[in-house]
Amino acid sequence: MEMTSTSKQPQKFIYNFGAGKADGNAKMKGILGGKGANLAEMSSLGLPVPPGFTISTEICTAFYKNNKSLPEYVKAGVLGSLQIVEKEIGKKFGDSNNPLLVSVRSGARASMPGMMDTILNLGLNDETVEGLAKNSQNPRFAWDSYRRFIQMYSNVVLGMNHSLLEISLEDLKDSKGYKQDTDLSVEDLKALVKDYKQQISQELGRQFPSDPYEQLWGAITAVFLSWHTPRAKTYRQLHDIPEEWGTAVNVQSMVFGNLGEDSATGVAFTRDPSTGEKRVYGEFLINAQGEDVVAGLRTPQAISKLAAQGSGMISLEEAMPECYFQLLEIQKKLESHYRDMQDIEFTIEKGRLWMLQTRNGKRTAKAALKIACQLMDEKLISEQEALLRLDPLSLNQLLHPTLDPKSKKTVLAKGLPASPGAACGAIVFTSEAAEEKKEKGIKTILTRIETSPEDIHGMVAAEGILTTRGGMTSHAAVVARGMGKSCVAGCGEIEINYQKGEMKVGGQIFREGDIITLDGSTGEVFLGKVETVEPELSGDFDRIMKIADKYRRLKVRTNADTPLDSTVARRFGAEGIGLCRTEHMFFDPDRIDIVRQMIMAETEEERKVALAQLLPIQRKDFFEIFKVMEGYPVTIRLLDPPLHEFLPHEEKDQRELSDRINISLEKLKSRILSLHEFNPMLGHRGCRLAITYPEIYEMQVRAIAEAVCEIVKSGKTLIPEIMIPLVATQKELEILRNQAEAVIQAVQAERKTSFDYLIGTMIELPRAAATADEIAEYADFFSFGTNDLTQTALGISRDDASKFLSAYVNAGIFEKDPFVTIDKAGVGKFVKMGVEFGRKTKQQLKVGICGEHGGDPSSIDFFENVDLDYVSCSPYRVPIARLAAAQAALQRKGSIQ
Amino acid sequence: MEMTSTSKQPQKFIYNFGAGKADGNAKMKGILGGKGANLAEMSSLGLPVPPGFTISTEICTAFYKNNKSLPEYVKAGVLGSLQIVEKEIGKKFGDSNNPLLVSVRSGARASMPGMMDTILNLGLNDETVEGLAKNSQNPRFAWDSYRRFIQMYSNVVLGMNHSLLEISLEDLKDSKGYKQDTDLSVEDLKALVKDYKQQISQELGRQFPSDPYEQLWGAITAVFLSWHTPRAKTYRQLHDIPEEWGTAVNVQSMVFGNLGEDSATGVAFTRDPSTGEKRVYGEFLINAQGEDVVAGLRTPQAISKLAAQGSGMISLEEAMPECYFQLLEIQKKLESHYRDMQDIEFTIEKGRLWMLQTRNGKRTAKAALKIACQLMDEKLISEQEALLRLDPLSLNQLLHPTLDPKSKKTVLAKGLPASPGAACGAIVFTSEAAEEKKEKGIKTILTRIETSPEDIHGMVAAEGILTTRGGMTSHAAVVARGMGKSCVAGCGEIEINYQKGEMKVGGQIFREGDIITLDGSTGEVFLGKVETVEPELSGDFDRIMKIADKYRRLKVRTNADTPLDSTVARRFGAEGIGLCRTEHMFFDPDRIDIVRQMIMAETEEERKVALAQLLPIQRKDFFEIFKVMEGYPVTIRLLDPPLHEFLPHEEKDQRELSDRINISLEKLKSRILSLHEFNPMLGHRGCRLAITYPEIYEMQVRAIAEAVCEIVKSGKTLIPEIMIPLVATQKELEILRNQAEAVIQAVQAERKTSFDYLIGTMIELPRAAATADEIAEYADFFSFGTNDLTQTALGISRDDASKFLSAYVNAGIFEKDPFVTIDKAGVGKFVKMGVEFGRKTKQQLKVGICGEHGGDPSSIDFFENVDLDYVSCSPYRVPIARLAAAQAALQRKGSIQ
Repeated sequence: MEMTSTSKQPQKFIYNFGAGKADGNAKMKGILGGKGANLAEMSSLGLPVPPGFTISTEICTAFYKNNKSLPEYVKAGVLGSLQIVEKEIGKKFGDSNNPLLVSVRSGARASMPGMMDTILNLGLNDETVEGLAKNSQNPRFAWDSYRRFIQMYSNVVLGMNHSLLEISLEDLKDSKGYKQDTDLSVEDLKALVKDYKQQISQELGRQFPSDPYEQLWGAITAVFLSWHTPRAKTYRQLHDIPEEWGTAVNVQSMVFGNLGEDSATGVAFTRDPSTGEKRVYGEFLINAQGEDVVAGLRTPQAISKLAAQGSGMISLEEAMPECYFQLLEIQKKLESHYRDMQDIEFTIEKGRLWMLQTRNGKRTAKAALKIACQLMDEKLISEQEALLRLDPLSLNQLLHPTLDPKSKKTVLAKGLPASPGAACGAIVFTSEAAEEKKEKGIKTILTRIETSPEDIHGMVAAEGILTTRGGMTSHAAVVARGMGKSCVAGCGEIEINYQKGEMKVGGQIFREGDIITLDGSTGEVFLGKVETVEPELSGDFDRIMKIADKYRRLKVRTNADTPLDSTVARRFGAEGIGLCRTEHMFFDPDRIDIVRQMIMAETEEERKVALAQLLPIQRKDFFEIFKVMEGYPVTIRLLDPPLHEFLPHEEKDQRELSDRINISLEKLKSRILSLHEFNPMLGHRGCRLAITYPEIYEMQVRAIAEAVCEIVKSGKTLIPEIMIPLVATQKELEILRNQAEAVIQAVQAERKTSFDYLIGTMIELPRAAATADEIAEYADFFSFGTNDLTQTALGISRDDASKFLSAYVNAGIFEKDPFVTIDKAGVGKFVKMGVEFGRKTKQQLKVGICGEHGGDPSSIDFFENVDLDYVSCSPYRVPIARLAAAQAALQRKGSIQ
Repeated sequence: MEMTSTSKQPQKFIYNFGAGKADGNAKMKGILGGKGANLAEMSSLGLPVPPGFTISTEICTAFYKNNKSLPEYVKAGVLGSLQIVEKEIGKKFGDSNNPLLVSVRSGARASMPGMMDTILNLGLNDETVEGLAKNSQNPRFAWDSYRRFIQMYSNVVLGMNHSLLEISLEDLKDSKGYKQDTDLSVEDLKALVKDYKQQISQELGRQFPSDPYEQLWGAITAVFLSWHTPRAKTYRQLHDIPEEWGTAVNVQSMVFGNLGEDSATGVAFTRDPSTGEKRVYGEFLINAQGEDVVAGLRTPQAISKLAAQGSGMISLEEAMPECYFQLLEIQKKLESHYRDMQDIEFTIEKGRLWMLQTRNGKRTAKAALKIACQLMDEKLISEQEALLRLDPLSLNQLLHPTLDPKSKKTVLAKGLPASPGAACGAIVFTSEAAEEKKEKGIKTILTRIETSPEDIHGMVAAEGILTTRGGMTSHAAVVARGMGKSCVAGCGEIEINYQKGEMKVGGQIFREGDIITLDGSTGEVFLGKVETVEPELSGDFDRIMKIADKYRRLKVRTNADTPLDSTVARRFGAEGIGLCRTEHMFFDPDRIDIVRQMIMAETEEERKVALAQLLPIQRKDFFEIFKVMEGYPVTIRLLDPPLHEFLPHEEKDQRELSDRINISLEKLKSRILSLHEFNPMLGHRGCRLAITYPEIYEMQVRAIAEAVCEIVKSGKTLIPEIMIPLVATQKELEILRNQAEAVIQAVQAERKTSFDYLIGTMIELPRAAATADEIAEYADFFSFGTNDLTQTALGISRDDASKFLSAYVNAGIFEKDPFVTIDKAGVGKFVKMGVEFGRKTKQQLKVGICGEHGGDPSSIDFFENVDLDYVSCSPYRVPIARLAAAQAALQRKGSIQ
């Protein structure tokens, strides 16, 4: 952000607002920030807004370019705008008789609650405080405001340690025997102000600024500087807010809710943010300032009579009925103006209602769906708008069991929220233990340093998966998401010791059988059992999904390897399978040993014997999946991982296997050694296996073809899409396509059954993307394997990236984890290249994506824009993808009516 | 090759030749094959060539398309051409009075000696043999020719086991008490013919074809079929001859060197093929057929009187002076026509000289240089032509010690010719042993399953390196080539057992201290000591190199990490360093422990302490290299490998290290474990190290800058080029460039010395190539790291590729090992993309390549055509690159005068 040249003065950079008129409006969030834009909009709507002005976000940039100091033209502009405010409100800044006090607040384009600085009551000094006392007829209020201002300013602007002044206050209270701040008398407060100023000059070596203008420049500077505090940076990273947006500064005349029993302050939502119900929802406090509502020292009162019933407290409706009905009117006006549920802040000063803020209210996924449906029914928004209002990722909340919010929780550790949903069970450290316990009806959490394909059966048996290593796209995370199972990954605070059969976290030791609970949506691990609640899919959900389907162009398929996954995905609306991984089938305990015999075979003959045993098993696998997906396309990826993944790594397991399949341990070990690879990701896998051992794919293609024959004979239809992985060259695909077609033709002849089929390839290597025109000659379809494409294009191993990826995101090198959201500028180029080159050769080439990005809304938006035909994602991501695809299509058309 | 459709008949597909005229010429090798084209050319030159015709290579393709049978139009064409031959020579095919006999030979575009089939004396049967006997007045000759023909034809065309007829011949000789074939009488031969024919009909169930035309179709078919024998295929793979070229067939009237004492046959080179000397060089036999010269039963005689002196044998010059002088004339004519040294075959039939073949003669590298220089001096060829005649790779023969050809050798095993040169020494299995022995003055061969960077000091100490695993670009191979040290890699026949301290090969066991010899140019491993001869660089070499420098556009730099490498490279003409790898410096025994302390550091402070110790050492490294390269650019790559490569892998070494650097073994192991990576190639390395540990590069940049200051202070100039590896994004380079510049500016200020420098990056990831326009904004130069670019673009780990790479080359998926010759259609696209995008941003961007491909002639040709500025290769490759770069430039211009 820091640059050396000074930029030119912008044409307009300060925007006044006040009752009835404003220079800006709600659409100008980019330069006014959210708060400033809405204050302007409310002013224009004629709502009672305390007058003020907004210094634009461009000045934030100018400020940093100007060596972190305010350019002179900004000061001049501020003085001019201040005069307008003075005129409007009839007070004068720094005037000792009738002083104007202002608040100075940050306001970024996106809300960053609590992240940045605010100064209230600015403009007070030893003279103006007397004016305030006189005008308010409340000297105690005036001096208390002054005291608070000094405290806040010295901390926020002068950078003084907060607690120093706090101690003075506490000392004074102690010496007088006071319990509460409100016990302080005017004289006490005056003494305190004197004491504060003394301490400040001692501590900082300079006087507290008594000039209101000096105060003002200091406060504006402080707000700009607060854009670059570490906590603000962290927040932005977490919420994908670009550094260069900058913040605006809002300078607004103060109104006071603490001027007596006819004053109050409160917050309200125009609809219930947790259920979406249409009712007044909010809280207020009489004789209080905004911060008191937040601070929680006093219990706020409900706004409506209905909501206050039984609380023993008076509602706003009863206490100040006039203001209440005015508020209702304003709410209605705001909702019909903004056409969305609003979150508002208000203050009542001596019986007069002032609006301090309005913005679209945050809400739960459930409420979001309901509100969207209501607003459509109320004709406030169109279907398209309803879709665009929703956050696809928030649907996760609805699809998985969640922790009961009423339960008490003790957090043990926090990892990555790798697969959403809550899960509770006994710790187990091995997949075998998970299976054993499952048989006895005991729920478990499979707790591993990391998982490997050998753990699939344990992951199936467990309720949730916890790993101490690996990222959002580690094996555990990917497989768990596929299964819709809760997973917390890469939880580095936990140390697992397999030998001792224990895990250590925060000094505590846990053993097999101890109960823990995971929240896969937050990454939290809890001690003991936390109750969970099952998801309930509302009518609103179905309605929104149907509307989404109406507007999307992209088809949504699923990545599913089992009939169960397929069934879940169909229920969520999947339109076929985009990726059926056959290796997971190989790991099933009833066949893994046959697979291993195949690998250990020394001749093609021996290998064929083992493969012949696998054939009927695979055929059944495919048949069962085909039955579920009848009528839809099913893309089956032929064997992909390197063979060593199927052999056991532990000496003990090797010994057992050696006994079971009657092959000497020495031979087994030597084979494992010979299969060892330095970089398995770039090794002997994918179609390379089939070039060296053609019989493996031949068996798989035969199993597919025979299964389709059975489907066809039962009068149903299914078009299998056979997908060949890791193709880098045209020739590979040519050879393997010919091989596969020969097998299919043989099966069709044997069984006297014919069926249509497609043969295509994954585009997951940069070379494949760059030569997609050649490859397309032998492909009926392309499916982008963006996981591997990301690994190879960026040269980053997914399994090893955790060592530097967070540093990369922190340094701004990657905007987001490229394994979660596609790196559009880099990997995206290869996807685009692949699509364009492929369609150059074959205009009608079917093109999809089956990497993890297929379920990520931001990536889906990209895939829409490069004209893919479909995305494929894990079953629980299907609804998210449906909605995201609809949004992408709408955004592309720019067709919001 | 086998396709289903039949292609159209070509317009012309048979080309006649004979004395004084021909349908074809020497330029038509593509369709006439080498032999056919040269027979045509010689005919046109008016040389005495037995008339005949060539069936074009297109017919080979047509033959295979026609289900491996001769299309009818081919037969018709052959009959027509045969009539022309009959007319010219005055004999008739199949005529019992005056029969025309022909030879049928293959002739591919490139020479494939001994690979394909030949049939002589075709046209003989029980009737025509009598005509031949009569005309030659030599019945014994006629029947012997008939007997030989049947033997050859039954083997080559009918596929009969050769030895069956051999046995009959031997039986007959035994029963008659004959010693030699020449003892057989006419009656014996007649009986033998009868016996042969009987055996053939018994064995094959059909009569030997007596119809000359049937014989002819069979022979032509056999030649076409021989294109696809396994040995021919293997030969083509080894010599990069495309399958689709096909072979031509030459049908030519027979002439006989075995018709008496006035007949002879011989071969000759127009200059000495092993030294290049200008003198008649050849051998002949009186009263013999061509095959007798080759068979070696009789000792051939020298052609010139001078050469025959002392042999006790008569020269051609003396025996048939007329023919001798005619031959000299023809040689002169051929040389000045072909403008190259010729390898010719001739036959003298009854005092008349016939030319059977001419082609450019094969020669040693030394002879090639000398002949090129001579031909230039004789004004036969231009400088450009001289350059284009030479095979750059053959220069390897001149640069390294070679085995004394006079020594006796016993081959133990054969691996890959990974780094040329001969080496002899005692087997050692560890780098430590190599060093110990070196100190005692004992030469060693470092013999390892594979080498790792830890072995560098052992490789330095050893004479040669032998590994049992890994390919042409394995660690051992790459480092050995860099050092110019002999290396045989991936010698799978040898089994090493480190525990037992022995290696096994072919049942023999060898232990440490046993002597072996390596030939790194052939991959052979020999038993015991084989004498070697040192290379001697001739004046011809220098002259050619200077001419090459005149014509090349590409600069040639070297990859060198030490002053020694740099000195060697300078001697070979390197124009700077294109890649100085700093990690090899880290492995030096006197500093590796400091590096390890740096890695084990737990805080930035600790790390900085270790780095401070490394600083003066690195500064000295750079200073020494800079001194050698003074005035030339030196590109230094900052640290690249993942840190775990610097830590010991063996428990024993870990224990020792733990004692040495006083860090607990547990802690050491735990660090090693935490640094472990699944895919180190795609791991935490290159610039990623510097993003997480900026202090490492800061130290290196400081060392470079300080060393340059010292050079500058001594009044010399050096422009360092600092190269940041593994950049994938603009931001990485931006951050690290800024960091490096800050350090340089600090050093310049401290030392009050200024110097110019460049900061650039490697383009070795597909993403970097695809976003080179962005990256170029922060780069002064690009250097393509085509090793890693190949790994990532193709998704193939160099270290693991051996498992399938040969299958890939065999299946025609890769033309050549893509780690040896750049994959132009794939990886090449990324190089092109990188150059174009980079120069779009910065027109003057300096672009080079420092991968292994920088020393490969075919790759250099590609780099010339995509406008790189320089190539960089290992020191011993520099002359090869200079020549290849000149050839590439000439070929690009098409400027052969």
